[in-house]
Amino acid sequence: MIIAVIGDASCSAEEARLAEAVGELLAQRSATVICGGLGGVMEAVCRGAKSKGGLTIGVLPGEDSSMANRHVDIPIVSGVGYARNMAVVKSAQAVIAIGGNYGTLSEIAYALKRNIPVIGLDTWSLSRNGREDGSIIEVHGAAEAVDKAIALAEEKARQV
Amino acid sequence: MIIAVIGDASCSAEEARLAEAVGELLAQRSATVICGGLGGVMEAVCRGAKSKGGLTIGVLPGEDSSMANRHVDIPIVSGVGYARNMAVVKSAQAVIAIGGNYGTLSEIAYALKRNIPVIGLDTWSLSRNGREDGSIIEVHGAAEAVDKAIALAEEKARQV
Amino acid sequence: MIIAVIGDASCSAEEARLAEAVGELLAQRSATVICGGLGGVMEAVCRGAKSKGGLTIGVLPGEDSSMANRHVDIPIVSGVGYARNMAVVKSAQAVIAIGGNYGTLSEIAYALKRNIPVIGLDTWSLSRNGREDGSIIEVHGAAEAVDKAIALAEEKARQV
Amino acid sequence: MIIAVIGDASCSAEEARLAEAVGELLAQRSATVICGGLGGVMEAVCRGAKSKGGLTIGVLPGEDSSMANRHVDIPIVSGVGYARNMAVVKSAQAVIAIGGNYGTLSEIAYALKRNIPVIGLDTWSLSRNGREDGSIIEVHGAAEAVDKAIALAEEKARQV
Repeated sequence: MIIAVIGDASCSAEEARLAEAVGELLAQRSATVICGGLGGVMEAVCRGAKSKGGLTIGVLPGEDSSMANRHVDIPIVSGVGYARNMAVVKSAQAVIAIGGNYGTLSEIAYALKRNIPVIGLDTWSLSRNGREDGSIIEVHGAAEAVDKAIALAEEKARQV
Repeated sequence: MIIAVIGDASCSAEEARLAEAVGELLAQRSATVICGGLGGVMEAVCRGAKSKGGLTIGVLPGEDSSMANRHVDIPIVSGVGYARNMAVVKSAQAVIAIGGNYGTLSEIAYALKRNIPVIGLDTWSLSRNGREDGSIIEVHGAAEAVDKAIALAEEKARQV
Repeated sequence: MIIAVIGDASCSAEEARLAEAVGELLAQRSATVICGGLGGVMEAVCRGAKSKGGLTIGVLPGEDSSMANRHVDIPIVSGVGYARNMAVVKSAQAVIAIGGNYGTLSEIAYALKRNIPVIGLDTWSLSRNGREDGSIIEVHGAAEAVDKAIALAEEKARQV
Repeated sequence: MIIAVIGDASCSAEEARLAEAVGELLAQRSATVICGGLGGVMEAVCRGAKSKGGLTIGVLPGEDSSMANRHVDIPIVSGVGYARNMAVVKSAQAVIAIGGNYGTLSEIAYALKRNIPVIGLDTWSLSRNGREDGSIIEVHGAAEAVDKAIALAEEKARQV
């Protein structure tokens, strides 16, 4: 099972702690982490996953792997800039968003377009034409996020 | 000046009327229209622009131009699927969003990430971590949308 | 009709002369020029086309239009790096290759994969597993290249 | 170390045998295999690698992982169509090309543009403006291909 963890390359200490805990829990549940491979939330989730023996994939925007954080096991050098945001979420069975800026918002949008479940920790919320869009599943804390992501990914796997 | 008009391939009659009016007004102001080249809002804005002698560009997701609506003058066959959403907004000096689904949301996100102004007509609104994000400039009606888009595009041009 | 002209961002004086002549002739035949938008062959073909009142499209690899040569009328900001090479050739009904390096080779490959005719002026030639691949149509001089490209593009249009 | 193996989705029995042997040898040398994830050469190399306990990555052109061959451990769903060809080669330290059609040629071009060594087994050969381009390193047999790829990848790693 592959779970995407998305968030900004610059993040608060609290977001980094959350991301690291998410990475630890995903590794303990034997889920592979995929992310954008850079710093901030991406680095923290990889560090957490590696500390518990997990596998980490970083899909990078540039032309070589030099920007990958040092906790990425498998750097995918996309060559397509921020179009790599699609690969991060489409390769996953569920997505956990932690905080995040407009890049993260584009990833949320691509995931929802493909019906890939998005679990949100202190992230974007959306409304459309004045009505709330409840597609992002808001949770509290790393444990709830990972439980929910894995449950929804398993459900999705059963449907296919 | 190039203005992007974004919205869904399936849209309401009211959204189509809005998009057509936006296309007419952009053409009358000598702005080139760029869009995703398909149906719905994209077709309506191209139809409007052509009815007033404007120029229309459609950046298509697929492998050939067969999906382009018949009011596209210049079909750009991207070959990169929905990564073409980036090209639609990054090629423009301002963006007008009309209604829209998750694809439109990804375009809004990419535009805001690049500081390209986004004018919204009955479209998404965003909040982040509980606080409203006021980046999408909400307007009422086609005329206000086009006035605002052109004013902001001209301002941006002066800054460069 | 849209004809792609491909070649390197750094080129010899002779290649630049060829590209400029190709641009002039395409404009005189009312064909729109699409290219990668940068310097070298791309700049020369746009300069030629503009000198005869033609329309030029440059599909750029980066995040804004600042790298476009000044003879590009319509800069398409792809945001997908060298994946823009696909858009350059797939948007055209025929391709003229002038000289060129590995980037040009990738464009030739993408065009041939889609059965888009490639006319070559002092460019790559290919063999596969020891046998010559005659897919690139070798010509001599700008006039022959433009005649051939337009004839093949018209033939292709009739087939569709 | 990640080695890309490229070739067509439809291939001869001999090419499939070669690709399978290359996969076995790469796995025995502890190299991770990256490929385009589909059938033909891509499937054969993954089958070979898995038979010797290797790790396989398939970077897919489409919108989900349903097209991945069943020997792919990590399907990367790029969403960018054949722009995924860039990711296949840029993520590797060396590339082995087996036979191949125009898609493979585009991958060879992207690799050479980035100075990533390309080892060829019965594949394309190139000349430019009448002169042979010796950039593709021709070898005979799976063992020589793998030896050469790993030696060049290690050399490249030392330079960085």
